[in-house]
Amino acid sequence: MNTYFVKLLALTLLFSPFFSGFSQKINQQDSTMIKQLFNTSLNDGQSYQWLDYLSNNIGSRLSGSLGAELAVDYTKEQMIDLDLDKVWLQPVMVPKWTRGAKEYAYIETAPGVTSIANICALGGSVPTPYGGLKAKVVEVKSFEELKKLGREKIKGNIVFYNRPMQDDLIQTMRAYGGAVGQRYSGAAEAAKYGAVGVVVRSMSLSQDDFPHTGAMSYGDTPKDLRIPACAISTNGANYLSATLKLQPNLLFYFNQNCKSHPDVQSYNVIGEIRGSESPNKFIVVGGHLDSWDLGDGSHDDGAGCVQSLEVLRLLKKVGYQPKHTIRAVMFMNEENGLRGGNKYAVEAKRKEEFHVFALESDAGGFTPRGFSFDTNEENFQQIKNWETLFSPYLVNRFVRGGSGADIGPLKNQGIISVLAGLSPDSQRYFDYHHAANDTFDKVNKRELELGAAAMTGIIYLMDKYGDNFKE
Amino acid sequence: MNTYFVKLLALTLLFSPFFSGFSQKINQQDSTMIKQLFNTSLNDGQSYQWLDYLSNNIGSRLSGSLGAELAVDYTKEQMIDLDLDKVWLQPVMVPKWTRGAKEYAYIETAPGVTSIANICALGGSVPTPYGGLKAKVVEVKSFEELKKLGREKIKGNIVFYNRPMQDDLIQTMRAYGGAVGQRYSGAAEAAKYGAVGVVVRSMSLSQDDFPHTGAMSYGDTPKDLRIPACAISTNGANYLSATLKLQPNLLFYFNQNCKSHPDVQSYNVIGEIRGSESPNKFIVVGGHLDSWDLGDGSHDDGAGCVQSLEVLRLLKKVGYQPKHTIRAVMFMNEENGLRGGNKYAVEAKRKEEFHVFALESDAGGFTPRGFSFDTNEENFQQIKNWETLFSPYLVNRFVRGGSGADIGPLKNQGIISVLAGLSPDSQRYFDYHHAANDTFDKVNKRELELGAAAMTGIIYLMDKYGDNFKE
Repeated sequence: MNTYFVKLLALTLLFSPFFSGFSQKINQQDSTMIKQLFNTSLNDGQSYQWLDYLSNNIGSRLSGSLGAELAVDYTKEQMIDLDLDKVWLQPVMVPKWTRGAKEYAYIETAPGVTSIANICALGGSVPTPYGGLKAKVVEVKSFEELKKLGREKIKGNIVFYNRPMQDDLIQTMRAYGGAVGQRYSGAAEAAKYGAVGVVVRSMSLSQDDFPHTGAMSYGDTPKDLRIPACAISTNGANYLSATLKLQPNLLFYFNQNCKSHPDVQSYNVIGEIRGSESPNKFIVVGGHLDSWDLGDGSHDDGAGCVQSLEVLRLLKKVGYQPKHTIRAVMFMNEENGLRGGNKYAVEAKRKEEFHVFALESDAGGFTPRGFSFDTNEENFQQIKNWETLFSPYLVNRFVRGGSGADIGPLKNQGIISVLAGLSPDSQRYFDYHHAANDTFDKVNKRELELGAAAMTGIIYLMDKYGDNFKE
Repeated sequence: MNTYFVKLLALTLLFSPFFSGFSQKINQQDSTMIKQLFNTSLNDGQSYQWLDYLSNNIGSRLSGSLGAELAVDYTKEQMIDLDLDKVWLQPVMVPKWTRGAKEYAYIETAPGVTSIANICALGGSVPTPYGGLKAKVVEVKSFEELKKLGREKIKGNIVFYNRPMQDDLIQTMRAYGGAVGQRYSGAAEAAKYGAVGVVVRSMSLSQDDFPHTGAMSYGDTPKDLRIPACAISTNGANYLSATLKLQPNLLFYFNQNCKSHPDVQSYNVIGEIRGSESPNKFIVVGGHLDSWDLGDGSHDDGAGCVQSLEVLRLLKKVGYQPKHTIRAVMFMNEENGLRGGNKYAVEAKRKEEFHVFALESDAGGFTPRGFSFDTNEENFQQIKNWETLFSPYLVNRFVRGGSGADIGPLKNQGIISVLAGLSPDSQRYFDYHHAANDTFDKVNKRELELGAAAMTGIIYLMDKYGDNFKE
C-alpha cells in the first residue's frame, strides 16, 4: 500500500458519505421512526392547540405576573393529562418588575409643538421622576462615541442609542448580537457621563411602530445614579434622528411608571417519562414559560414550551419507550434573570443527575432549518451523520454553535455532554421579539409542528445513541 | 495501479467535495459578487417598495381586468426608470372572466333553518341559474368514488369534493398536486353523471374561513351541460361534511354571477440588458403579472415579478455587464390560460432567440431555500457545485425538478438548455394562495429580498458559465 493510496483513503473516509457508514449506527428503523414522528405531529398534533390556550387564554407571562402563575398551572395540568411518570413544580424565586401605567413620550421641537413617540420601558428600568422627564437629546451609535463626547456633552441630557441591527447579516441572531449591547448596558454607560435618561432604538429589523422591550442592567451603577431607559420603535428612532438633524435642540419627554419589587415565588414545571434502561441518566427538552409583557409571547417562547410538551406526547403516542429518563422543562424567568435555568442545573448537580443531552427551542416557532450543537468536534461529527435522516423534512442544517440560555447552566455545572438548540428560520423573529405583535396569529401551525417533530427526532436519536458521546 | 485503487479513486471523485474542484470554475470573484448582490438587496433593495405599489396601489390583476392593465403600465414605467437597454410590451390576447356580484351560499337543514357558507366561484365557472341553485349534496373524496356512485345517485344533486390536501407532505406543492384535480376537473367529471353543480374544498392546508379560487376547466363538456363550480372554505367544508352526516338530505344553495367574455388585448412586459459578448443569446427571469381577483396577489405572483425586476436592477447596481442579453419578463395570464408564457416562447422561436437559461419565481415571496432545475443530469451535476456559493445565505438546496409554468413553453419550443424555479419555504404558501388573504402584509421584506438576491446570483452564474450547458 503506497503512501498516496493511504492519503487518498483517508480523504475518502473524511469527506465522503461513506464515512457515515463506518461511524454511525443509524438505520432504517430510525428513518421509519422519524417519519412516524413527523406524520403524527402534522396529522394529529397538539402543539398548536396548546399554544392557542397559552397565548389567547392566558396571554403574557412575565416572571411574577398572574399570567406566569396561570401558565405554571396550565402546563402542569397538561403534563398530568399526558400521563407522564412524574410531574412536579420546582420552586424558584424570581424577580418581579411591573410596567405600571402605559408609557408616554413626545418630541418637542418648539414650545407646544410636539409629536408622539412610541416607546416602552426596558425591563428592569427605574421609572422616570414623577411627572416625567424632559431633556435635550444626544444621539450616538456606540459606546465609543459616547465616551468621546464625554461628560461635558452628555451631562443633563438624554442619550439616544440609534445603531440599527445590521440588515445584511443573513442570520438575524447575529444582527441582534451586534446591537443589543445598547439596550442591555446603555443606561449604565450613559449614567457614567451624567445622562438623565436613555432612549434605545428597538432591536428589530422591521421598520414599524412597535417598541421592543427586553432586559437591561444597571451593572454596578449606584441606586441613586440609575436613570430610566426606554425603547423607541424603529420608525420613531428614524423620525427622532431625522428631526435632531434639523433641530439639534429639540426636547424629548418621556414618562414611565415601571417598578422593581421584591422577589416572588415561582416554579419550573417539569414532567418526565422514566427511562427503561438508565433511569438515572437524563435527557432534557425545554423552552421558557415566562415571556415579556407586551404581546402574548407566542414565538418567545410559548412555541418552545408547547413543542417541548409535544416531544413527550409524540414519544408516547408512537409507543417509544426511552432508555433514559426524558424530561420536558418549562423554565421560568429566562427573560429577566435566568433563575429557572440556574435552579434546574443546581438541583440536578446536587442530585448527581447526569444529563446525556439537553435541547432548547427558544428562537421562535418558524420553519425549522436544523440544529445548533454545543459539544466537542468529535461528538459533533457523529451527530452530523444524522443530517441525512432529517433531509426529507428539510431540517438538515446541523452546525456547531450555541444551544439555549436555560440549558446553558447545565454545562457550567459540568453534568452534561451535548447541548443543542432548534434553529428555525430567523428572518421574521425580530419583527415580533419582545413586542406587542408577538402574538398567536404570527405562528403558523405547520411550522410549529415541523419544529416539534424535528425536536422529537433528535431526542429519540440521543436516547438511542447518546451514551456514546463524551463529555 | 491496482483495480481496488481505481475503484476507490472513482468513488472519491463521485462522492467527495473534491469532485467540485475538477468540474467547476467558480472562484473567489463569484463568491464576492454574490455577497455584494445579497448585501445590496438587503441594505438597498427596491423589491419590497415595488410590491407595495403593485399590491396596495393597484391590487388584484386578473387577466383582462383594469388592475392587470395598470400593472402592465406600472412595471413598464419601472423598467424604463431602470434605464434598461430596451423595454417593450409584447401583445397577447387573453381570456376575460369576471366574478360579478359576490357569491352567496347557505346550508339548509330544514325549511328556513340555514347557515351561511363561505364560497367563491372557481375561475372559468359558469354562473348559477338566475336566482341561484338549490339541491341535495353528495360528498365524495375522489373521481373513483364519483364513478362508483354513478348517475343514479348523482343526477340532480350537487357534488361536494372534500378530499383535503395531505398534511404530512413536507413540501406543500405536492399536497396541492394531490388535491387540485378536484378543482380543475371536478365540474367536468360531475357533469357526466348529471350533477347540477359542484362545491370543492378549498386548496389550503389552513383551517379557516377563506374560500380559494383557481382555474377549472370543463374539458369537452358541451356548453349546455356545463355546471357551476365553487370553492368552499376549509372550515365550511368541515362543517358541511359534519352536517351531512347528521342530515344527509340537507340542501345547499349557492348563487354566483360570474361570466366569461371574449378575449381581450393584453401584454407581456419585457425589459432587457443587452449582452456584451453574445447579445443574441438570452437569459430570462420572470414571474407572472396577473393574479386572481380575491386578494392583491402579493405572494402569487407579485413577489416573483418584483424579484425579477430586482434582478436587473441589482446587476446594474453592482456594475455587472452581462455577456448574454438578460431579460426580465412580466408574463400575463399564467392563472387562467398561460397565454403570455406561450406567446413569449412562440415569438422567441420565430425570431430564433436561443435561451441559455430561464428562471421563474412563482412559489411565493418566502425565505428562499434553493432552486429546482429542469435540465439533464450532466448539466445539473455542474450546477450543483454552485451550492457552496449559496450556503452562506442558506439558499443551497439545489434539486432536479420543475421550473415554472410561464417558462415551460420555451422547453416545448426546444430553444433552451436549462430552466429553473426559485424554491422558497412552502409551509405558508397555500394558506394564502388564490384567496382574499394573499395580501402585502403576508410578505416579509427580508424574505422577499433574500429571494431576489439568490435569483440574481444564479442569473449571474448562468451568464458567466451557462454556455457550457448542453441542451
